[in-house]
Amino acid sequence: MNDKKMIEHHTHKLAETIKRLLRRRAIGPLRKIVNKIHEGDLSFLFRFLSLSEQLTLFDLIKDKEKQGYILSEIDRDTFLALVKDMSTAVLIDIIENMPSDDAADLIDELPPEKADAILEGMRKEESEEVEGLLKYQDKTAGRIMVTDFIALKEDTTARDAIISLQKEYSDVEMPFYLYVVDEEGRLVGICSLRQLVVVAPSTLLKSLMTKDVIYVQTKMDQEDVAKIVARYNILAVPVTDDNKKLVGIITVDDVIDIIREEATEDILKMVGAGEEFVETKSVFRSSRTRLPWLFVSCMGGLFAFYIIGIFEQALMQAAFLATFIPIIMGMGGNVGTQSSTIVVRGLATGRLHLRHFTTIVLKELSVGAVLGIFYGLLIGIVAHIRYAKWELGLIVCIAVISSISLAALIGSMVPLCLAKFRIDPAVATGPFVTTSIDIISVFLYFKLATSYLL
Amino acid sequence: MNDKKMIEHHTHKLAETIKRLLRRRAIGPLRKIVNKIHEGDLSFLFRFLSLSEQLTLFDLIKDKEKQGYILSEIDRDTFLALVKDMSTAVLIDIIENMPSDDAADLIDELPPEKADAILEGMRKEESEEVEGLLKYQDKTAGRIMVTDFIALKEDTTARDAIISLQKEYSDVEMPFYLYVVDEEGRLVGICSLRQLVVVAPSTLLKSLMTKDVIYVQTKMDQEDVAKIVARYNILAVPVTDDNKKLVGIITVDDVIDIIREEATEDILKMVGAGEEFVETKSVFRSSRTRLPWLFVSCMGGLFAFYIIGIFEQALMQAAFLATFIPIIMGMGGNVGTQSSTIVVRGLATGRLHLRHFTTIVLKELSVGAVLGIFYGLLIGIVAHIRYAKWELGLIVCIAVISSISLAALIGSMVPLCLAKFRIDPAVATGPFVTTSIDIISVFLYFKLATSYLL
Repeated sequence: MNDKKMIEHHTHKLAETIKRLLRRRAIGPLRKIVNKIHEGDLSFLFRFLSLSEQLTLFDLIKDKEKQGYILSEIDRDTFLALVKDMSTAVLIDIIENMPSDDAADLIDELPPEKADAILEGMRKEESEEVEGLLKYQDKTAGRIMVTDFIALKEDTTARDAIISLQKEYSDVEMPFYLYVVDEEGRLVGICSLRQLVVVAPSTLLKSLMTKDVIYVQTKMDQEDVAKIVARYNILAVPVTDDNKKLVGIITVDDVIDIIREEATEDILKMVGAGEEFVETKSVFRSSRTRLPWLFVSCMGGLFAFYIIGIFEQALMQAAFLATFIPIIMGMGGNVGTQSSTIVVRGLATGRLHLRHFTTIVLKELSVGAVLGIFYGLLIGIVAHIRYAKWELGLIVCIAVISSISLAALIGSMVPLCLAKFRIDPAVATGPFVTTSIDIISVFLYFKLATSYLL
Repeated sequence: MNDKKMIEHHTHKLAETIKRLLRRRAIGPLRKIVNKIHEGDLSFLFRFLSLSEQLTLFDLIKDKEKQGYILSEIDRDTFLALVKDMSTAVLIDIIENMPSDDAADLIDELPPEKADAILEGMRKEESEEVEGLLKYQDKTAGRIMVTDFIALKEDTTARDAIISLQKEYSDVEMPFYLYVVDEEGRLVGICSLRQLVVVAPSTLLKSLMTKDVIYVQTKMDQEDVAKIVARYNILAVPVTDDNKKLVGIITVDDVIDIIREEATEDILKMVGAGEEFVETKSVFRSSRTRLPWLFVSCMGGLFAFYIIGIFEQALMQAAFLATFIPIIMGMGGNVGTQSSTIVVRGLATGRLHLRHFTTIVLKELSVGAVLGIFYGLLIGIVAHIRYAKWELGLIVCIAVISSISLAALIGSMVPLCLAKFRIDPAVATGPFVTTSIDIISVFLYFKLATSYLL
């Protein structure tokens, strides 16, 4: 029995042992370890190995299913590198043993010729299943569902249901729910394996099943699927086509992966660091992902440079004006980031909704005003004390208040407007919001200062 | 059957209908709706209602379990407001019908006297269960587990197991796994309900069970529990005490909630907007949560103000120097936020690990250097073109390169160092990182400019 108390420690210890064995090319012990440990641990371990180490280990895995699991869990880049020199025959053998949703995902990543070769080489039944899934758009319910589920007719008895569970459905991924369908294969009810074993064997599914089934359609976005599974606390959700025909199920373990991925994606997108986790990629790839988003910030900076340039004359008379640029920009930037983060996350989790556009923006604006007045007074007083000039203090105070309030306004409006136009609100909200706040607040500050102070 | 195709739309339509009925005080129709819709939808709906509307609806719910479900799903603040005027007797009735983990959570939120009164009034068996859970620290496995699970002895036959499933364990939350324990109640194996129905009825659990059980201990942090459930794709994980005695199980639906909560918590913490989702709270509460974190940014701004003050003489001679402050600060701030976000999220998801401290920091520094050189050259050239002064171009270029590289360095090191000292790396990393980058980069820039330009 595994003691999981120190699971992280344990995994990293294991990674070190494996690296040592790899260096010594101790194939025997490696083979033993690799085939003993859980595929969940193995795919986790893979993150800490180099490509050549991964290749060596991968070849030592005997079980095709374990190999398939690894391929479906690792990063896209690592996957492509791993399968690059693999023969089509070997790849077919692995992919045939994978759940159809994972197989479709992998085949979709491959270059078209290789993908076609694999689909042609696969058992007809399997390749049809995969091709069926590939018809659906990426990140929809149809794409992430598995097509092996237990579907029985309404007038099946509990006894017969158990028998077909033993015979027909011996390799179903989620054998805890049985779906009840009519003659046309349309979903009409659900019963749990548990209900099945506690009723009299002659009970018909019809009289046993729950008719109010929660289901999704193939076109639904995977994020919405995840929300439904989370909201109703279910272990699997059935997927139907437009005619309510049951075509697949989505299991909770895939939902967990979606929730984690989407959260990571949102967080990274917000700061303009790509969608996928880039830290494990090369320096070049990481830089290339992050470079374009910084362009927003660069253009904004050049714009601010131009604006301050307008006030160059004023600055020569009163150089001290420049000393407040960082604090006015910094406070605005931080409040704007807070507001946009709250709104982006709120929209993603369903805590906020586009329908309450005005309420959300007004709420943020009020919070911005409260924060602005607090810090405006504080910084204004510091300015007055430092330069013994109450007009300066007043102007700095007003500049901070307007910068922070505007920041809250822009920070909450930008993601809401993006969502309104059906653009993902997380897309580089960070750089965009902070940059526009920088420009506006610096301009306002200098305008105020030159109008009333000089 | 619910068509979930337009689930969001549907829920909001429902919210509007309910609000209209509430305004008209149409209690009859309201009672009908409330008792018909799924508790998952109902608790979601509650977010869009005012407190008095929530109170009215809540009283109309007949089913105690449904009431309990709502109480466990809503925000802490809303919960406290809802139960404030509820009699102890009513509250006891609801809490007794809740899963023990949710009951413990709620009782923990209540004022001590009220909590004690409730525990005293509950059935002994129930209150003991809850008190047992309350002994464990918040956010640990012991606290989030449920204590009703199916535990059978090794020499039970499959037939007897099914019989006890029908009799003893009729209200277990996750009836799909059976845990096998020895005479002392120590966990020795697991078998699934599915295995149970496909074997001969006389088969002993001993010969049927999987011995290599993935389990966690009561003290494990809930985030680690979530990682394990996600890594091994399991529907429930058993929890043992220090003596390997089975004391509870944690089910995958709770794990989903943990994953979502922790992601929200991390995102909000990073920008200094509290831990819990604040947008649904009052303006005052929201401001109070966000105010202290901005203090970091304010102090930093005042520090930058002081630093630029040192160079006031230089600024009077060359006011144009001020025009580059925003771009140098902005670029550094954005790169720093990218780096810290990547590291915080990487640590949270296990993609990055403290063991690779140097590798991670060097990687980020390299990316920072690449980005810095690109934008440094770009901005330097603009500076040169604008002022026809190649020395200025060079200094701006160097300032941008060092600001961006430093930002990547600080952005990656701060969360890693926090993690090293066992402080949550997400804690207001945002304001802290951007502020320190602002100060250092502005200082460097002016130092360079005054040393070589004037």
